[in-house]
Amino acid sequence: MAEATYAKGLEGVVAAESEICRIDGEQGKLFYLGYSIEDLARFSDFEETTYLLLYGRLPNKEEKERFSKRMRVSRDLAPEILEMVRNFPKDAHPMELLQSVISYLSGYIQHKIQHSATCNCRDTLHQVVQLASVVTAWQRFQEDKEYVPPRRDLSHGANFLYMMRGEEPDEFEGRVMDTCLVLHAEHGFNASTFTARVVASTMSTCYSSISAAIGSLYGSLHGGANEKAMAMVEAIGSKDKAAEWVNNALDSKQKIMGMGHRVYKAKDPRSIIMEEFLVQLSKRKNNTLSYDILKEVEKTFRERMEEKGKPIYPNVDFFSGAVYDLLGIPKILFTPIFAVSRVAGWLAHILEQRRDNRLYRPKSLYVGSEAREWLPLEKR
Amino acid sequence: MAEATYAKGLEGVVAAESEICRIDGEQGKLFYLGYSIEDLARFSDFEETTYLLLYGRLPNKEEKERFSKRMRVSRDLAPEILEMVRNFPKDAHPMELLQSVISYLSGYIQHKIQHSATCNCRDTLHQVVQLASVVTAWQRFQEDKEYVPPRRDLSHGANFLYMMRGEEPDEFEGRVMDTCLVLHAEHGFNASTFTARVVASTMSTCYSSISAAIGSLYGSLHGGANEKAMAMVEAIGSKDKAAEWVNNALDSKQKIMGMGHRVYKAKDPRSIIMEEFLVQLSKRKNNTLSYDILKEVEKTFRERMEEKGKPIYPNVDFFSGAVYDLLGIPKILFTPIFAVSRVAGWLAHILEQRRDNRLYRPKSLYVGSEAREWLPLEKR
Repeated sequence: MAEATYAKGLEGVVAAESEICRIDGEQGKLFYLGYSIEDLARFSDFEETTYLLLYGRLPNKEEKERFSKRMRVSRDLAPEILEMVRNFPKDAHPMELLQSVISYLSGYIQHKIQHSATCNCRDTLHQVVQLASVVTAWQRFQEDKEYVPPRRDLSHGANFLYMMRGEEPDEFEGRVMDTCLVLHAEHGFNASTFTARVVASTMSTCYSSISAAIGSLYGSLHGGANEKAMAMVEAIGSKDKAAEWVNNALDSKQKIMGMGHRVYKAKDPRSIIMEEFLVQLSKRKNNTLSYDILKEVEKTFRERMEEKGKPIYPNVDFFSGAVYDLLGIPKILFTPIFAVSRVAGWLAHILEQRRDNRLYRPKSLYVGSEAREWLPLEKR
Repeated sequence: MAEATYAKGLEGVVAAESEICRIDGEQGKLFYLGYSIEDLARFSDFEETTYLLLYGRLPNKEEKERFSKRMRVSRDLAPEILEMVRNFPKDAHPMELLQSVISYLSGYIQHKIQHSATCNCRDTLHQVVQLASVVTAWQRFQEDKEYVPPRRDLSHGANFLYMMRGEEPDEFEGRVMDTCLVLHAEHGFNASTFTARVVASTMSTCYSSISAAIGSLYGSLHGGANEKAMAMVEAIGSKDKAAEWVNNALDSKQKIMGMGHRVYKAKDPRSIIMEEFLVQLSKRKNNTLSYDILKEVEKTFRERMEEKGKPIYPNVDFFSGAVYDLLGIPKILFTPIFAVSRVAGWLAHILEQRRDNRLYRPKSLYVGSEAREWLPLEKR
């Protein structure tokens, strides 16, 4: 056996090959299965993008219709699942509920609906679709409102807004929401996707693997950036206070949420699309407050960074919080919505992992005590 | 940045340092925090071993009593959790339920009981203790029996048998069960423990991390070996058929469950203790059927292997299934019991991960398609 390499946090280690996502951080490009995020945002929708991720190619007309239909019939929640949502403590976080419901579904769908043990995870799509239903149901119960059953004539994004509001969104809002789901559906080997693959590598179910990934996304080092960016907008309050706020934050070494990205050295391509949505939504809603604040934050931040010769751009989280806010979505749902979308990518990675599986089994280096003699209780 | 290393399945990569567990495969030795598994099995119990794993040292008398009390008061299930258990499809696997309940508890305990957001996961021990209550409640409901509330005067192992049976086990059986939990509480960086650490590295909760680990343990490449070993005993049926069964299995290249171990080249030290339990239980119950079959399997197997010059020994799973069976535990609970015990080790690793955290973030190597031009639906 070769000498073991110590790589804390697995830094610099390539854990697997993957065909799903290409990120070109230098050029600011993102591709799902070779298709650019710009084309996907412009021409595709969440259901079609999910098909692309799961099958590795775009569907033809018949396949697209069949797949879309399969997703839509899976939207409604079983009474027992609704009970779980209703019983969940109101002041607890919906990510914990999501993680729980998905593994509950594992047993539930398989044995009460039509899932078979040999299912390849594309036959039923509850694990992809029902996250949206759980998130919206949770939000309704928070407001002491009744569950709104899903509609089958709406896109995944529009139906999300419908189930949350109890009213059909206009076409533009539905389209924006659906495209936000496309933009977040996949992004390579981040911590949650890696988690999904680690669990899948034991040959556990897709539900178990997705549930575990939700657990990782809940971690403050992973999800939550757009929630914090929106909290920043609220804390600043008005455009004229933004420059001072940013200067103070930077002087006291605070991080400005949504600026810069570990992978993208050029502009995050998703942020360009997201900014355009924010511009249009702000205009339609006659409310440019958040956008004005964000642009002032961006300007001040970049001026400060340029003094140091570092060009730093906004990432997708910088604008997405304000977009969701204008769609009437409360901040606590921002990370759950990330899961509603990224589940498509997780499942793609789970399927890819299974196609050429190797159990992830790194070693640890023992740095603990030598053998110790037992000490009876009375001598301690 | 250094050149990336490609290590499929992270083979040969050291992902972290750890002080918790030392396994000496050549000598057949296992230590938790420096204490040998033989001493732990002989002198300790599951509660004290859990303390050792979580605090890194043995408790004194007062600490032991306080910790034990804290574990015991956390045993009872909330009505909503019992509902989840009751509603779970009867033909689904309890591991899926366990994974779900633990993340549900994450919100539940924190907000309804006494968990605080800054809790260090040792203040409440529901995440360790309640797995046993869920597993036994599930089993009761399977048999259309009522939930048996826990008792506080019994060890963790004895209380498990009590909640499952509705009757107090005799002292010996309680001791055997409790020691089985000690033997399985920790075993280094296996797939489920690694999963727990990956999720914990995002700074997610201990509940989320444990839930994810349960998902990995459910995978057929990880848990389930003792269930299969017991199924083998049942399939063989009697001692005189064992040799032929093993010979046939080996001739058709089948794996004999419970023989050999990836890490232990000498005897798995836990198997020696487990065999002794099996001998004693068989005698007490006047039922040596399983033991006789297993010994005949072992003998035949080793004769065949010695022809090839490879000494291969039974591992802990070889005997533990038969031990559980004599304790009246159905096979489907074997992997859940593994979780009931290993949760102590998972939590130890979660705490260790947090003390010197680095997000696990390996890379993937893109091997997919070049950029593709968008193809409108009508042209596909």
